[in-house]
Amino acid sequence: MNASIKEILEKELQFSNKKVLIRGWVTSNRGNKKIRFISINDGSTIESLQITLKGEKFDFEILDQTRLGAAVEVEGEIILTPEAKQKLELLATSFKVLKNVDLDYPIQRQEINTETLREIPHLRHRTNLFRAIMLIRSTLALEIHNYFSKKGFLYFNAPIITSNDGEGAGETFFVNDGNKEKPFFGTNKATLGVTGQLHAESYAIGFNKVYTFAPTFRAEHSNTKKHAAEFWMVEPEVAFYELKDVITLADDLLKNVIKNTIQKHEAEFKFLTENIDKNLLNKLENFVNKKLTIMDYQEALVELEKVKNIFENKDIKFGLDFGTEHERYLAEKVVNGPVAITNFPKEFKAFYMHQNEDNKTVAAFDLLVPGIGELIGGSQREVRYDKLLSRALEIGISQDELQWYLDLRRFGDSGSSGFGIGFERLVMYVTGVDNIRDVIPYPRTTGNIKM
Amino acid sequence: MNASIKEILEKELQFSNKKVLIRGWVTSNRGNKKIRFISINDGSTIESLQITLKGEKFDFEILDQTRLGAAVEVEGEIILTPEAKQKLELLATSFKVLKNVDLDYPIQRQEINTETLREIPHLRHRTNLFRAIMLIRSTLALEIHNYFSKKGFLYFNAPIITSNDGEGAGETFFVNDGNKEKPFFGTNKATLGVTGQLHAESYAIGFNKVYTFAPTFRAEHSNTKKHAAEFWMVEPEVAFYELKDVITLADDLLKNVIKNTIQKHEAEFKFLTENIDKNLLNKLENFVNKKLTIMDYQEALVELEKVKNIFENKDIKFGLDFGTEHERYLAEKVVNGPVAITNFPKEFKAFYMHQNEDNKTVAAFDLLVPGIGELIGGSQREVRYDKLLSRALEIGISQDELQWYLDLRRFGDSGSSGFGIGFERLVMYVTGVDNIRDVIPYPRTTGNIKM
Repeated sequence: MNASIKEILEKELQFSNKKVLIRGWVTSNRGNKKIRFISINDGSTIESLQITLKGEKFDFEILDQTRLGAAVEVEGEIILTPEAKQKLELLATSFKVLKNVDLDYPIQRQEINTETLREIPHLRHRTNLFRAIMLIRSTLALEIHNYFSKKGFLYFNAPIITSNDGEGAGETFFVNDGNKEKPFFGTNKATLGVTGQLHAESYAIGFNKVYTFAPTFRAEHSNTKKHAAEFWMVEPEVAFYELKDVITLADDLLKNVIKNTIQKHEAEFKFLTENIDKNLLNKLENFVNKKLTIMDYQEALVELEKVKNIFENKDIKFGLDFGTEHERYLAEKVVNGPVAITNFPKEFKAFYMHQNEDNKTVAAFDLLVPGIGELIGGSQREVRYDKLLSRALEIGISQDELQWYLDLRRFGDSGSSGFGIGFERLVMYVTGVDNIRDVIPYPRTTGNIKM
Repeated sequence: MNASIKEILEKELQFSNKKVLIRGWVTSNRGNKKIRFISINDGSTIESLQITLKGEKFDFEILDQTRLGAAVEVEGEIILTPEAKQKLELLATSFKVLKNVDLDYPIQRQEINTETLREIPHLRHRTNLFRAIMLIRSTLALEIHNYFSKKGFLYFNAPIITSNDGEGAGETFFVNDGNKEKPFFGTNKATLGVTGQLHAESYAIGFNKVYTFAPTFRAEHSNTKKHAAEFWMVEPEVAFYELKDVITLADDLLKNVIKNTIQKHEAEFKFLTENIDKNLLNKLENFVNKKLTIMDYQEALVELEKVKNIFENKDIKFGLDFGTEHERYLAEKVVNGPVAITNFPKEFKAFYMHQNEDNKTVAAFDLLVPGIGELIGGSQREVRYDKLLSRALEIGISQDELQWYLDLRRFGDSGSSGFGIGFERLVMYVTGVDNIRDVIPYPRTTGNIKM
């Protein structure tokens, strides 16, 4: 019977005394010339399966030389061992080394720090830490697709290469085919998209509920633990939704996705709780079970003002664009959990956000979480043609370039709202890992484009 | 009760005589000053819901001026009408125009050809044709994720910006941040990935079964119906798999995904069969039910040789890289269904493919389908370090650049196989639409980067 180690461990009774065939990679190898215990991992879980090998049918010379990382194929019988440290083992009847590893294989039993592992992104997923992170990352992505699919959202692909700078923020990468005289797209302004939102809006008008899940790019030089030049974004956009509706959607999405992911990764969360953050599962369960706090920007200012001396940026007044220190204080100290801050000053928010009646703020929200700060940013979009156009012109976007987007407002657009989740930030939050370079397989940052 | 039009139409008995609230967009508006029939669509299906409005509570002046494309909100009761053309209608108790459309709204009842619609990618999805295509596209994507998830695959994100040219084929886009002196990534060779395969291989060794689903890019100037500069690829990679295993996987994946998609889109396939290809559903059901034919490249040559005069390229001999005309002949005339051609001459295949013992061919396959030609290309990967290296050097790839990939073979890689599906080609095949520009929301081709 072919089975994954995850299946065998989860359905132990079903596999008791059954013959199985496993292919995987050696994670430990000990014993002597008469009995050998070799653990193998097949990537389905961070847990390894212990293989017991004894008897004359095995060449103990070969077993002895089978190094960590070697690919092997084992057949045998599953034996439940309720008294032992591991709850079951595989009593091998045959053992084949499919491919050994060279002696300079860098992944060994002793721990390697994550910084060193970043130099070998093609191998680091063979450590328990990165196995856990990447398994959880994969499940988070699938649970996001499942959530939207169940709610009747259309999965929409915005263009990646675009002539449209969504945020009006600059910091974009340019794309060319090396031909300076005659550029591929007929323009030198082809860039990599920083958001799929504007295009998603066009599809929300007609499909009602849509979302993107795609790579986005920023040529930002900030060398922080939270920023990468290439990262994945999830951007739902819903017609007829206002600010409050879309905050509810964000909260419900996160709660469902996190709850389902925890259920599917008991072993991985146990490992992360033991090794990365003792409080991890508590924190996530708190998130899932607690009602989201919603706080107006100006209320938040009052809270920050009370303790302004603890901040590096002490200039707490209307107009302040919160830094991570302020965001974390609000989530960690004021609320002790996630908090949605609403109605920010329009000056530092994007041109397309709904302008509130006070003429100073926009109907935007940032969802802040402990340990990270901003996880989600979103808004109700400005549906009034004139207000949208004048704000765009104010910040120097040309009407020509934006006419298609403005035209949505003339053609049956009665308003929509949406938000963006930085997917890697979600993975960081859920795994407790504090550096974005460790939650994406091949991170891209300033000066770093390994492999 | 809030419900989508798709739900109401699929569960008609459950909604009979129930009050519902619908928000959507007007697709037709007829009647007189006493009774009005307005159809609305909410994007959940291509079908519209007929609203009947009568009585003094409605302002028939406003109803008369509510144009196609207007956003409206209607409340009323679902009445089953088994004798009428449409099986149910909504008898309105209230009707609100949330946003009318300006008079120059281009989507009207008379059909517009697809070429003209390509000029307005932000609006064309409000026609029945593009509604059907994009609904099916979304479901195909989700069914692909579901299939792999059920089979225990890890969803893996290869880097998009890379210093590694996967196919060794050139035709890549370059990425820069506008700084010539000090390029963002410290190199002028940062490009957009043409495949995630090499990186996926690194993850297959450790995770066993992985897949990507991501945008890929080619700076190809070919102005054909099948080529785009930006397209989405699905690339599974499985450790321990050989050529035959991965062909079986491709066949099983497609059959499951297509079968489930057909079931979820009765109305859309009815529309496409009536308007695009009378034979569409027959073709797809034939695919789902028929055993896949596997044919060696040299057998295929024999078949082509028999009729070589019908081809533009009549040079049918070992070494021929099949053109679309040859591919379609094999699928449409010889097999009358999908066919996997195997063991191609190594000259025109990628360097990483397993070299067969004949020293002439590689363990590759192309899956050809009627109407399209190549839908999938895949191979068993060369696991022998020396053979892999010498082939790479032969075609001019530097060892330095490739060392990380070569090293996989030294570190427990006992072989893997995988394939790539051009996702847009799959959407073309499944919808019967013959131009790639019409199956992706915002197509990017030479000189075309609208919006």
